Amino acid sequence: MEQRARVLIDCIDKKGLVYKISKIFYDMSLNIVSNQEFVDKESGHFFMRSVVTGNFSVKELQDKLNTITENSAKIRVVPPKKKNIILMATKESHALGDILIRYLDNELDANILAVIANRSNLKSLVERFNIPFIEISADGISREEHEDLVLKELGKYNFDYIVLAKYMRILTPKFVSAYEGKIINIHHSFLPAFIGANPYKQAFERGVKIIGATAHFVTNDLDEGPIIAQDVISVNHRFNWRDMQRAGRDVEKVVLSRALKLVLEDRVFVNQNKTVVF
Amino acid sequence: MEQRARVLIDCIDKKGLVYKISKIFYDMSLNIVSNQEFVDKESGHFFMRSVVTGNFSVKELQDKLNTITENSAKIRVVPPKKKNIILMATKESHALGDILIRYLDNELDANILAVIANRSNLKSLVERFNIPFIEISADGISREEHEDLVLKELGKYNFDYIVLAKYMRILTPKFVSAYEGKIINIHHSFLPAFIGANPYKQAFERGVKIIGATAHFVTNDLDEGPIIAQDVISVNHRFNWRDMQRAGRDVEKVVLSRALKLVLEDRVFVNQNKTVVF
Amino acid sequence: MEQRARVLIDCIDKKGLVYKISKIFYDMSLNIVSNQEFVDKESGHFFMRSVVTGNFSVKELQDKLNTITENSAKIRVVPPKKKNIILMATKESHALGDILIRYLDNELDANILAVIANRSNLKSLVERFNIPFIEISADGISREEHEDLVLKELGKYNFDYIVLAKYMRILTPKFVSAYEGKIINIHHSFLPAFIGANPYKQAFERGVKIIGATAHFVTNDLDEGPIIAQDVISVNHRFNWRDMQRAGRDVEKVVLSRALKLVLEDRVFVNQNKTVVF
Amino acid sequence: MEQRARVLIDCIDKKGLVYKISKIFYDMSLNIVSNQEFVDKESGHFFMRSVVTGNFSVKELQDKLNTITENSAKIRVVPPKKKNIILMATKESHALGDILIRYLDNELDANILAVIANRSNLKSLVERFNIPFIEISADGISREEHEDLVLKELGKYNFDYIVLAKYMRILTPKFVSAYEGKIINIHHSFLPAFIGANPYKQAFERGVKIIGATAHFVTNDLDEGPIIAQDVISVNHRFNWRDMQRAGRDVEKVVLSRALKLVLEDRVFVNQNKTVVF
Repeated sequence: MEQRARVLIDCIDKKGLVYKISKIFYDMSLNIVSNQEFVDKESGHFFMRSVVTGNFSVKELQDKLNTITENSAKIRVVPPKKKNIILMATKESHALGDILIRYLDNELDANILAVIANRSNLKSLVERFNIPFIEISADGISREEHEDLVLKELGKYNFDYIVLAKYMRILTPKFVSAYEGKIINIHHSFLPAFIGANPYKQAFERGVKIIGATAHFVTNDLDEGPIIAQDVISVNHRFNWRDMQRAGRDVEKVVLSRALKLVLEDRVFVNQNKTVVF
Repeated sequence: MEQRARVLIDCIDKKGLVYKISKIFYDMSLNIVSNQEFVDKESGHFFMRSVVTGNFSVKELQDKLNTITENSAKIRVVPPKKKNIILMATKESHALGDILIRYLDNELDANILAVIANRSNLKSLVERFNIPFIEISADGISREEHEDLVLKELGKYNFDYIVLAKYMRILTPKFVSAYEGKIINIHHSFLPAFIGANPYKQAFERGVKIIGATAHFVTNDLDEGPIIAQDVISVNHRFNWRDMQRAGRDVEKVVLSRALKLVLEDRVFVNQNKTVVF
Repeated sequence: MEQRARVLIDCIDKKGLVYKISKIFYDMSLNIVSNQEFVDKESGHFFMRSVVTGNFSVKELQDKLNTITENSAKIRVVPPKKKNIILMATKESHALGDILIRYLDNELDANILAVIANRSNLKSLVERFNIPFIEISADGISREEHEDLVLKELGKYNFDYIVLAKYMRILTPKFVSAYEGKIINIHHSFLPAFIGANPYKQAFERGVKIIGATAHFVTNDLDEGPIIAQDVISVNHRFNWRDMQRAGRDVEKVVLSRALKLVLEDRVFVNQNKTVVF
Repeated sequence: MEQRARVLIDCIDKKGLVYKISKIFYDMSLNIVSNQEFVDKESGHFFMRSVVTGNFSVKELQDKLNTITENSAKIRVVPPKKKNIILMATKESHALGDILIRYLDNELDANILAVIANRSNLKSLVERFNIPFIEISADGISREEHEDLVLKELGKYNFDYIVLAKYMRILTPKFVSAYEGKIINIHHSFLPAFIGANPYKQAFERGVKIIGATAHFVTNDLDEGPIIAQDVISVNHRFNWRDMQRAGRDVEKVVLSRALKLVLEDRVFVNQNKTVVF
């Protein structure tokens, strides 16, 4: 039966890899629809994303690919299916709303299992889209207690990614390591400028002429995880920091949705603290 | 002896191409430094640009690659060496000057053999860079007579590309077909908007908020050849058409130089009336 | 009582205007919060947008300003209040959804009175935001009959602007002249490139490297009305026309919302077939 | 005799300023060609740039304007004439070359009096443009000794601005305070990201997807002076830091030349550690 799969390879580079991989494709009569490769000379890593079609067993392809290189290689054969995601937010609706509209539009290759928020503001918006809204207030409890409640809730779902759509709380190392490489955040500045609190106020005070936003994977180094996508917008002396914030929202939502699309299409590989984006 | 070459392939797509090509690389113990592929489903064409290193004979590699596919395939093994270019201009110095500064800076992977112009304005500039300046005036002679003089001059040189750095005369089909796929032009508008004379005046009169420039290969359809690169810049109601022209020059020179760099690095394939840019 | 108003002036330019206007402000003890002026030398028109605060009567200010120049002058004193808008759409939700999310977010300085559509697709989305959705199908009736139904519906509302959020039907001159200068459209191309049907397909076939979107006032010259805002996004040979369309949607919605914000803040003056945007 | 002047005002904001200024213009029968104002609510400052024409004495206009506000006001009536600039550079030619080509093209509203460099690399380029090239080597002497030589050389010229076109030495507070508000620098990063040495290497290591450049006035806080202009360019995982550096040069030169143009047209006001750019 004709089917399609993404072949995703992240391994130590060595001569003959492309030959060995393409030989497997050839021997299995697969058609290569698209193919992108990158060798990072610094880390000595080889990255590849191929889309293949043909009459084949995913398991057989996976098994054959597993034989070509070292054990530490990450080789995945991914049939096209929607990924499951959980959204987390606080009170701003622009980034969340942008994802919801795309979702409704079938433009997002994902199922949204739930929205978890630490405030109630977004409940009405989310429920209009028939998505469960789970409010877990942080009032009166410690960061750790709050996170334990969130982790408990997350434990109920089988998901691929957590998307922080302007979730304004800092995650503890415990949380981050529980979902390493699975948490996507939108940072409201052009990282690494203006790390920390209220980047728009910092940007205003510095008198910059351009502001930006950065979508990245979350790691324990706050605001320092691998960058997936960035974009910018021009501002001028007429913008106070609230104007910058308003203008910045348009960039934030576009960058987060762009990064999410790239991740859902399996186009993003983490390469130490950077990304390879095909 | 360790050497490096670019392998450039443009042929009809068929199953097994990547396998056969990578097998040749593997059998010759070549290392793949970078590799990009694209299949155009509409035209059914396969495009590939690989950079390989190893201890090999260019001729042997070329011969082996020639066996893998049909006769109409364009397969080239290109050792890294500077290409030869001829610049043509009229009177504006921004695009020409930008190329000359890069040339002086060793940033341009090319030898500039000569600058041919139909006016004398740029003579002083060009000669400061120790490049032959050949003025071929069009005054008092027909377009055909003028072009014959230019073609005669061009015939003295062994060059890879002609770069029209704001050469403001229209080329005849005779000229274009003599150097098909070898003439790069910068058009002072965001094609296909504002085809024809004085695009900045047209843009001003239309009240656009963004202007642009387009670098393209020249074909007999005026302003209609395959686009290599484009970029834009914002304008507003305060710009008269001269201001737009001035602002546009910054885009023109950057886009032309970017396109030239892509062409000199063999990153541009012509695909019918489009380009594939790796 | 301290209040705030926007003073909007569009008149024939003559010496002393700024003096006379600022004298009125001074005599009435108004504070100028912001002030922007533009003189179009070609049309000989003077445009000004001032925001003033003070303890004043809007009528008195309007009356005084009316005395300073010719009868044809358009002088308006606009107290800050939400404008009323009607949205029109067909079946795509990205542009409409973007406006709805901003509306919910109180980011839009407008009341949305209704959404009129010629299909039913968007009914569910719109009603989630508690906004009347009026479907006026064009099936089985002539363009004129359909428009008469729409005009009749519009007649029920007291609105300032009609926003065509991907309304995919062509308006007749009758419709346009009924609401001249009050209809804002988003055109899915970087005008004036790719006028007409399916601009993304045209863009794909031309092989452009950048696509864009244009928000403009609607006039009887199809796709030729005064441009309010434009923006672009890069594409490459890997994009088929559907990919371009998808990528283009992000630009469309951002450009339309940006134009709408400018119009709602009274920052846009129509100057013949162009705009002055303060 | 009909003449033209720029009126530049930077003073403490108070009610009636625009009225008083426009009254002076009116009483002197001046025509306002263009006019831009800005009130910074935080600093309580009023900024204005008017271009006026008429039959007037510059001294008379200046005297009258001096009466309208407090003594600390900076009010200048500037007749249009070329400003004098000194360029300083080290060894890279892209930013310097871009300015030289514009100079030759009469696109720069300035006389270049000299180029001062701490290396000899650029001597040949500069002298081709018939501009004095003064090499002041820093070899074997202290920073202070070197600067004293530079300051001595600068003392010979009567100039308006110093343009650091990739001058790669840090200036001492003594130097900066000698020419406060008169030194324009291009910083090879999108400030405030990547302050300090080798921003491109920092950018590469951080894995950013966009790099930029910043033109700013030099103050004693290294890389912290008022920003005049910024721009960015996209990069991806295929760029090593040298590629980023090469790509960045295009942004650097465009941003520096744009900032220089703004300064030469008296469009830039310093507002504490920010700029107002009309």
